[in-house]
Amino acid sequence: MKRILLLGAGRSAASLIQYLCDNATAESWRIRIGDISVGHLQPLMEAVTCVDLLNFDVHNERQRAEEVQQADLVISLLPAAFHILVAQECLKQNKNLITASYVTPAFKALHQEAEEKNLTILMESGLDPGIDHMSAMAVIHRLKDAGGKITSFKSFTGGLVAPESDNNPWRYKFTWNPRNVVLAGQGTAKYIKNGTYKFIPYHQLFKRTDEFFVEGYGQFEGYANRDSLSYREPYGLADIPTMLRGTLRRPGYCAAWDVFVQLGLTDDSYTLEGTENMTHCSFIEAFLPPATTQGQSITERLAAYTGIPADGTIMEKIVWLGLFEEKSIELTGATPAQVLEKILKEKWTLAPGDKDMIVMQHLFEYEQEGEKREITSTLVATGDDETHTAMAKTVGLPVGILAKLLLQGKINQRGVVIPIYPELYKPVLEELKQFGVDFVEKERVLQE
Amino acid sequence: MKRILLLGAGRSAASLIQYLCDNATAESWRIRIGDISVGHLQPLMEAVTCVDLLNFDVHNERQRAEEVQQADLVISLLPAAFHILVAQECLKQNKNLITASYVTPAFKALHQEAEEKNLTILMESGLDPGIDHMSAMAVIHRLKDAGGKITSFKSFTGGLVAPESDNNPWRYKFTWNPRNVVLAGQGTAKYIKNGTYKFIPYHQLFKRTDEFFVEGYGQFEGYANRDSLSYREPYGLADIPTMLRGTLRRPGYCAAWDVFVQLGLTDDSYTLEGTENMTHCSFIEAFLPPATTQGQSITERLAAYTGIPADGTIMEKIVWLGLFEEKSIELTGATPAQVLEKILKEKWTLAPGDKDMIVMQHLFEYEQEGEKREITSTLVATGDDETHTAMAKTVGLPVGILAKLLLQGKINQRGVVIPIYPELYKPVLEELKQFGVDFVEKERVLQE
Repeated sequence: MKRILLLGAGRSAASLIQYLCDNATAESWRIRIGDISVGHLQPLMEAVTCVDLLNFDVHNERQRAEEVQQADLVISLLPAAFHILVAQECLKQNKNLITASYVTPAFKALHQEAEEKNLTILMESGLDPGIDHMSAMAVIHRLKDAGGKITSFKSFTGGLVAPESDNNPWRYKFTWNPRNVVLAGQGTAKYIKNGTYKFIPYHQLFKRTDEFFVEGYGQFEGYANRDSLSYREPYGLADIPTMLRGTLRRPGYCAAWDVFVQLGLTDDSYTLEGTENMTHCSFIEAFLPPATTQGQSITERLAAYTGIPADGTIMEKIVWLGLFEEKSIELTGATPAQVLEKILKEKWTLAPGDKDMIVMQHLFEYEQEGEKREITSTLVATGDDETHTAMAKTVGLPVGILAKLLLQGKINQRGVVIPIYPELYKPVLEELKQFGVDFVEKERVLQE
Repeated sequence: MKRILLLGAGRSAASLIQYLCDNATAESWRIRIGDISVGHLQPLMEAVTCVDLLNFDVHNERQRAEEVQQADLVISLLPAAFHILVAQECLKQNKNLITASYVTPAFKALHQEAEEKNLTILMESGLDPGIDHMSAMAVIHRLKDAGGKITSFKSFTGGLVAPESDNNPWRYKFTWNPRNVVLAGQGTAKYIKNGTYKFIPYHQLFKRTDEFFVEGYGQFEGYANRDSLSYREPYGLADIPTMLRGTLRRPGYCAAWDVFVQLGLTDDSYTLEGTENMTHCSFIEAFLPPATTQGQSITERLAAYTGIPADGTIMEKIVWLGLFEEKSIELTGATPAQVLEKILKEKWTLAPGDKDMIVMQHLFEYEQEGEKREITSTLVATGDDETHTAMAKTVGLPVGILAKLLLQGKINQRGVVIPIYPELYKPVLEELKQFGVDFVEKERVLQE
């Protein structure tokens, strides 16, 4: 009997819990699920016998120690900031850990100790980061082994809505943490293009998009992620002339989102005065300069200020969100980003039956035997409904599969590890196919 | 004999030191000047007998304690971040303190203790903040005493070059800390206009300027300071419908500076990759998107990206700074802001004989006996040369005068205090007139 402690059972945990339960008998697992509140999991308790639930408070030091002590493997899907508390406990008690979150400097600092204790702290094991690393490394290793020289790598991922639920002018709904969507891209995007470092400040990010096409799914646009440079080393592409990672949206999203950035609505660094008396419309008003001509409407003023047409598709999106309505905000002491998030949630929440869609596309350019070639590797995954989303599947399943491999003793990497090694990504990508999570690859000659 | 300890003897201290020396005999002062390096003050030692110099390291706890212990009054012109160390020592040893810097939350926290110990920590006692408070409060108190109701208060200050030294296309040179000029305005500007809160994000700040006219000196433009709201309370204007504080430049400066903001050149939050191989021109290149048409020059690309004419007065300013030159940057591991500062210093440093100019303008609108009236109160102060600047005079003299008042026992305010009280501003404004620092007031009826 192996005991798995899963901490955090929010929106993205549904598919992982399903996977763990489905494998529990064959693998002889006992699964203990801890969350700040586990009431929503009671139906699960009635359906399966392999699960215990507990109310878990990550800040309760004693509970943390006791629970980790009883586990053979810990999985943390808690908010990213809390992983480090769990990791420190795991190190203390010699337990392995899996998370789907980014390796932070605090985690890097744990690498040596974990390695010395023969432990594996497996990070970036979800979708993005996670499946992106695994699927990219499968191609990179294959090309390198065949003597190819990779000259350009671009990789874009988006959590969107499936075509059958694609029914609002933004062609977007929230399929993960809304707060992260509102704050996405803050800071400076860094990448490298033809050997030249490039820096995009946040207020230009949504203007500088690339176009993408996915057969059967049409056009997309992508904006650069904050950091495309730090993966050059781990990917073995230290000298690659072009490398860019980014986020996919449907065409038109970025130009409309840019209006919010230009106004300052996504700022989370200060609290607004007077939100208790604000409506959607007066929230916008607070960020607009005075009218330049008599009788200008608020939409005309916004259009003039941000340089968009007063009656085009961008304005249509903004009006559709209800941003000009005299509807009370009902928040006190909120940041602009918090107000915007509240307004967006009213419109961008998945409706019953809505299906989401994950799109990931890697574009490689490489040279082999004097030929320039291009490989496009594309994943499209669709959710079952508004609960069993493609997002939950693609975040949870790789975590589950890696948990299985780790408990089976099939992972030899030690320390703080991301899934860029064949022993990790090969079995995960293989098993993911059974769940319809599969990449389609196309190759063509660019120039002989 | 009273002992004054002056800590920090940089660029802005010249006029203060002069003032202290000039008053030393009559007031029976001994002046001890501590700085990280005091070599440049040796000539002073030969000219006067009232001064001691010492190499002072604010981080040397023992030296800090010993020096404060021997003083009757401490003046700190150290970099703003170090004031708090000095203030804590002053509290411990029951000494009064004067600085020209903003009251930070850390200083606010000292108010009660200072008050209980019957001490005065006099902050914001230079030019801006300092003379701005004093001159504004003189008008505000006078209008209120006469039964006027102030409906609008705008106050703008600029450190510029005098007309006779106004010889570059920016009409600007550095007259104080260049780093602060590069970082000016970062964050969000908050103010209130006709009862509505207004928020300007940094990337819009230099687009949203107001125009100002000063008789005899021509046109200026002003951008909003970060915080125009927090002075409503201390000024006794808690319910004022319009209040805005800002910074003055010559017309055209802001539109050109905005290009740097749009590119991301003023960002101080991350270190650039590859600066060791960068030239001025490749520094700009790193922030530009690819050419959109064949054969576009870098100036054409920058113009298209930032929405400015390719051959207008804005581009003229940028070219004049040498930003497109293939000149090595000679910095490693620098932030964009540090690179920009280095390039600007080569062009914007005061030349021998250059005179600077301080311009401050307050605009009040008020109602009295059914009449709407406007008062404009304007200060223009010109420097003697590139060392005895108007900036050094207007920062140093009010500090010196307040030091005299404090040592004469003429200041009764206790705790952490800013000079908004008649007992402080009246004698300071009166004595400043002797140094040519004087406001010209104009009043007119707006509407009967």
